[in-house]
Amino acid sequence: MSTIDARLAALGLVLPPALALPPGMVLPFPWVRVVGSRALVSGHAPLNPDGSLAGPFGKVGQDVTLEQAQASARLVGLAILGSLRRELGSLDRIAAWTRVFGMVSSAPGFGQQPAVINGFSELILEVFGATVGAHARSAVGMAELPFNLPVEIEAEVELYPAAGT
Amino acid sequence: MSTIDARLAALGLVLPPALALPPGMVLPFPWVRVVGSRALVSGHAPLNPDGSLAGPFGKVGQDVTLEQAQASARLVGLAILGSLRRELGSLDRIAAWTRVFGMVSSAPGFGQQPAVINGFSELILEVFGATVGAHARSAVGMAELPFNLPVEIEAEVELYPAAGT
Amino acid sequence: MSTIDARLAALGLVLPPALALPPGMVLPFPWVRVVGSRALVSGHAPLNPDGSLAGPFGKVGQDVTLEQAQASARLVGLAILGSLRRELGSLDRIAAWTRVFGMVSSAPGFGQQPAVINGFSELILEVFGATVGAHARSAVGMAELPFNLPVEIEAEVELYPAAGT
Repeated sequence: MSTIDARLAALGLVLPPALALPPGMVLPFPWVRVVGSRALVSGHAPLNPDGSLAGPFGKVGQDVTLEQAQASARLVGLAILGSLRRELGSLDRIAAWTRVFGMVSSAPGFGQQPAVINGFSELILEVFGATVGAHARSAVGMAELPFNLPVEIEAEVELYPAAGT
Repeated sequence: MSTIDARLAALGLVLPPALALPPGMVLPFPWVRVVGSRALVSGHAPLNPDGSLAGPFGKVGQDVTLEQAQASARLVGLAILGSLRRELGSLDRIAAWTRVFGMVSSAPGFGQQPAVINGFSELILEVFGATVGAHARSAVGMAELPFNLPVEIEAEVELYPAAGT
Repeated sequence: MSTIDARLAALGLVLPPALALPPGMVLPFPWVRVVGSRALVSGHAPLNPDGSLAGPFGKVGQDVTLEQAQASARLVGLAILGSLRRELGSLDRIAAWTRVFGMVSSAPGFGQQPAVINGFSELILEVFGATVGAHARSAVGMAELPFNLPVEIEAEVELYPAAGT
């Protein structure tokens, strides 16, 4: 078992499968794009364990509470780890988290986007530790997100050189 | 003729000149910034064939329909290809599309940002094919965009090593 | 004295200390993340000379004027330079500015985000000159920003190879 998989198991964390797209929907792009030593991660949604979109839906500060949104951000993190493991083969290939762009669908006057995205950052630090898990971050308020999602996160990680190269 | 230029010609696609700025406006940055093997692409607007901003303007889901916004996203794609060709000399230097950040000025309750930005992604895949054209992507809803634009897209591409280096 | 520090002194510019977080607030990420030759800069706020958040606060085009927002964008620039100097040791290590993502909390109908973010871009060009300072840029309108900030900016710079490597 990989080091990170063992850590996930010790924390009782299970990664969801890829997003089950709603009928008729086409997303003509990959969830992760590897270029050289960088893996660029598309904007991800919170997912249920079966890969369906996880609620609650709506604007944070109005339809969704801060605590619910933090839980959603953590679910986004699990979804991203699932995508990265499927694409990379092993999460042990991640040498460093680099950039996290946290988007929160925000009701007028809601200004706690950093506290929401902490739900994601804390997961990454729990799983990867402070050195590998550290990341530059923004956490900001969007007018709308696809499917009425409360949180969407885009990210980038740096990979160890592939064996034999 | 370059391979990509031949492909553009076969598809009947013509790239616009650079944005003709409104009088008195100064944008103190380049449309494309090349650093090493990366070309970082500034946020682009949809352009008419003469380089003027292309309408319709306003919020998608209210002033602009989904179909109009998809067409705008495709025009953003042509504008970005124009900027890349001017900066790089040839679009054949592009080894891989890497990151696409699609921003949609969204009316309250509009959640079809991915369908809008598909107008861009499908153009890139038509012109570059599935391998080079694949890109990590987010498609999200902004409160406002400059000039009341319905769509703006930022991107990044990876270049082949320059000849002789 | 470093070249850039001398330039800052000649311009009469002083860099603020790191953001003094409001009581009880935790931000579990660094302001700058260095990976290889890249320094990724987290979203920064405008700061007062003592490191506290600098007003005015609210939405540009409603609570905050264009001119005030331009001044805020310049303050964000000084805050980012402060973070980069603390992380890098010297601003002379910056070989190129690469990407600037300027976020403006925008009142309905406000479309002058580029003019706001020019307050940042002009500072960078004054301090680093046209060659090093050039950057790809987007300037867009957010629904909300943390702490009711009018402007937040995320960025990336490229570093010279470290001595001895």
